[in-house]
Amino acid sequence: MKSFWNNYPEIGREVEKIKKNIIKNAKCKDKVIENSIVELVESGGKMLRPGFTVLASKFGEYEEERAIALGSVVEMFHMATLVHDDVIDDAELRRGKRTIQSKYGKNYAVYIGDYLFCLCFKTLGSTSSLKRDIQIDTKVMSRICLGEVEQLNSRYKKDITIKDYLKRISGKTAELFSLSLYIGAIESGCDKKTSRLFWEIGHNIGMAFQIIDDILDLTGDSNKTGKAVGNDLLEGVYTLPLLIALRNNKEAFDKVLKEEEYSKEEILEIIDLIKENGGIEKSMEIANKYSNKAFKNILSLPENEYRDILMEITKNMLSREQ
Amino acid sequence: MKSFWNNYPEIGREVEKIKKNIIKNAKCKDKVIENSIVELVESGGKMLRPGFTVLASKFGEYEEERAIALGSVVEMFHMATLVHDDVIDDAELRRGKRTIQSKYGKNYAVYIGDYLFCLCFKTLGSTSSLKRDIQIDTKVMSRICLGEVEQLNSRYKKDITIKDYLKRISGKTAELFSLSLYIGAIESGCDKKTSRLFWEIGHNIGMAFQIIDDILDLTGDSNKTGKAVGNDLLEGVYTLPLLIALRNNKEAFDKVLKEEEYSKEEILEIIDLIKENGGIEKSMEIANKYSNKAFKNILSLPENEYRDILMEITKNMLSREQ
Repeated sequence: MKSFWNNYPEIGREVEKIKKNIIKNAKCKDKVIENSIVELVESGGKMLRPGFTVLASKFGEYEEERAIALGSVVEMFHMATLVHDDVIDDAELRRGKRTIQSKYGKNYAVYIGDYLFCLCFKTLGSTSSLKRDIQIDTKVMSRICLGEVEQLNSRYKKDITIKDYLKRISGKTAELFSLSLYIGAIESGCDKKTSRLFWEIGHNIGMAFQIIDDILDLTGDSNKTGKAVGNDLLEGVYTLPLLIALRNNKEAFDKVLKEEEYSKEEILEIIDLIKENGGIEKSMEIANKYSNKAFKNILSLPENEYRDILMEITKNMLSREQ
Repeated sequence: MKSFWNNYPEIGREVEKIKKNIIKNAKCKDKVIENSIVELVESGGKMLRPGFTVLASKFGEYEEERAIALGSVVEMFHMATLVHDDVIDDAELRRGKRTIQSKYGKNYAVYIGDYLFCLCFKTLGSTSSLKRDIQIDTKVMSRICLGEVEQLNSRYKKDITIKDYLKRISGKTAELFSLSLYIGAIESGCDKKTSRLFWEIGHNIGMAFQIIDDILDLTGDSNKTGKAVGNDLLEGVYTLPLLIALRNNKEAFDKVLKEEEYSKEEILEIIDLIKENGGIEKSMEIANKYSNKAFKNILSLPENEYRDILMEITKNMLSREQ
C-alpha cells in the first residue's frame, strides 16, 4: 500500500520520514516491543492520518521537523488504539497479518499499546517548535477512548439508533481524522477559520470512511480487507447497514441475531437480509452525503496544489473497495 | 487509609482536593468509567505519590492549582498502570476490593486504563501555569511502561540477577516516586540541585517501598495486604527474597518451583525455604540501605517544616506492616 501516497512524492517522502521517525522512537531494550512497532509501521497501512497532517501543514508555514513529529504522534496514537482494539476483539488478523496479541499474547499487547500512548505524549512534549498548547489534542484523545468504550457497550444492542451509531463513529474514527488535519494546520500557523475548516473536513472524511469500512465488512472480499466477512457481526458490533435494515424490518432479524458464535452460513444469511432490507444501499447514500460535504469543504480551502492533492486523495480513499 | 496524611492537615487537605479533582476530571457520559474511577480514588489508597508532589511543591513557590493538577496527573498515571496490571495478572482483588476487571470485565479495564492515560496528558496539557516543558515527565512515563514489560518478560526465570531485579523495580516503581517529587519541586521553581535531590529521594524511597512490598507479599497478613500470600509467586514474578535464596541454595528450589498453579501448602513450603535460605533477612537489609539513603538525602534538603513532614511520612511508610 506504499503506493497510496506514491503519486504525490512531496507528501509520500514525508510519510516515509514519519515511518522512520516512529521506528527510531520505538528503539528500546525490549526487542519484542521494538519489533512489534516496526512490524506495525511496515504492515502496509495507508498512513492516511499522518499524510493528512503533512498535507494540512503545507497550508501554513511548513516546517519539516514539526510536521514529522505531529504526523508520528497521530499515527502512534492510531496504532495504540488498534493494538488495544485487537486485544478486546481477540482478533487474529489485522490487514491480513497476525495481530500483536495473537503473536506475543494479550499481556504484551496491553503494554505495547500503553507504550505507544506514552511515546505519543513524549513526542508531543518534546517537540520544541510547537506553537500552541497541546490541550486540544489531548482532549480529543480522551474522546477517542470514550468512543471505543461506547462501541464496547453497545454490543448486541438492537435498539441503538442511527444517531447513536453516528455519534459513536464520530468519536471512534472521525475525531482522529479531524485532529490529524487540524493539528497540521493550526501548528503551521494557519488562521483559525482555515484550521476549523480542516477539522470539519476531517470529520466528514472520517464519517464517510468508517461507514464505508462498515459496509465493506459485510460485502467486501476478505482477501482484500484482510478480515473475515461479517467480523463486526461476530463481535456483536451492530453497524449502520444492520441498524438500517433492523429499522426497516425488525421481525426479519428476530430469529437470526444472537449473542453466540455464528456459522458461516448464518453470517451470509444475515448479510442477505441486510441487503434485502435496504441496509447497504441506504448506508452508501449516507456515506456519500458525508463524502460530498467533505468535497465541498475542501473546495472552500485556499486554492493551491495541496488542495488538489487533498481532493484526489480523499476521492481515492472514499472510493476504495478494500 | 485517609489517616495516612491526617496528621499533616496542610498536606492532607490538598490530597483531598486532588481526589476531588480526579473525580471531576473523570466525569463523562459513560457511567461505568466514571464510577470505576471514583471507586479507584476512594478505595483507600494512601495517595502517597500525589502527597509527595504537594510536599515537594511546598519547597518552592507553592501555587495550589498547579500542585493539584500535577498531583492528579501522578495519581491518574499510577491508577492507569494498576488497572492494566490487574488485567495482565488476572487479579481478583486489589487493596482487598474487587478489581475493575473482575467487576466489569477485561475489555472495560483496558479502556479505563487508556482513558486514565489520556486524562493524565489532558491535565498536563491544560495546566497553563506549568513553567517547564513536559518532556521529562513524558519520558519517565515511557520508562515506567517498559518496567512493567520487563517484569512480564522475566516471569519464571530463575537466572535473573539481583541487578536485573533492582533495575526492574527502579523502572516499575521508583521512577514514579522520583517523578512525583521532582515534578512538584521543579514546577514550583526550586533550583536544579534541590529538584535533583528530590529525584534521588524518590528513587531511594521507591526502591525501599517496592522491596518491602515484595517481602510483605511473602510474609504479610493477607487481611492487611488485601492480597493472597505468595501472589507474586503465583504469577511467576520472582522477587528479591526468592532471588537471594535461589542464589544461596539453588538446589533447594529445584523441585518446588514450577510454572503451574501452586497449592497453598506448596506456597508455604517455598516461603519457608526462602526464609531458611536468608531471603527475607537479606532483603530487609537491602531495603534498609535504601531507606537510610533516603533519610540522609532528606536531611540535605533546606530545613523547614515540610522537610520534617517528609521525614516522618517516609519513616511511617517504610516501616509499614501492610
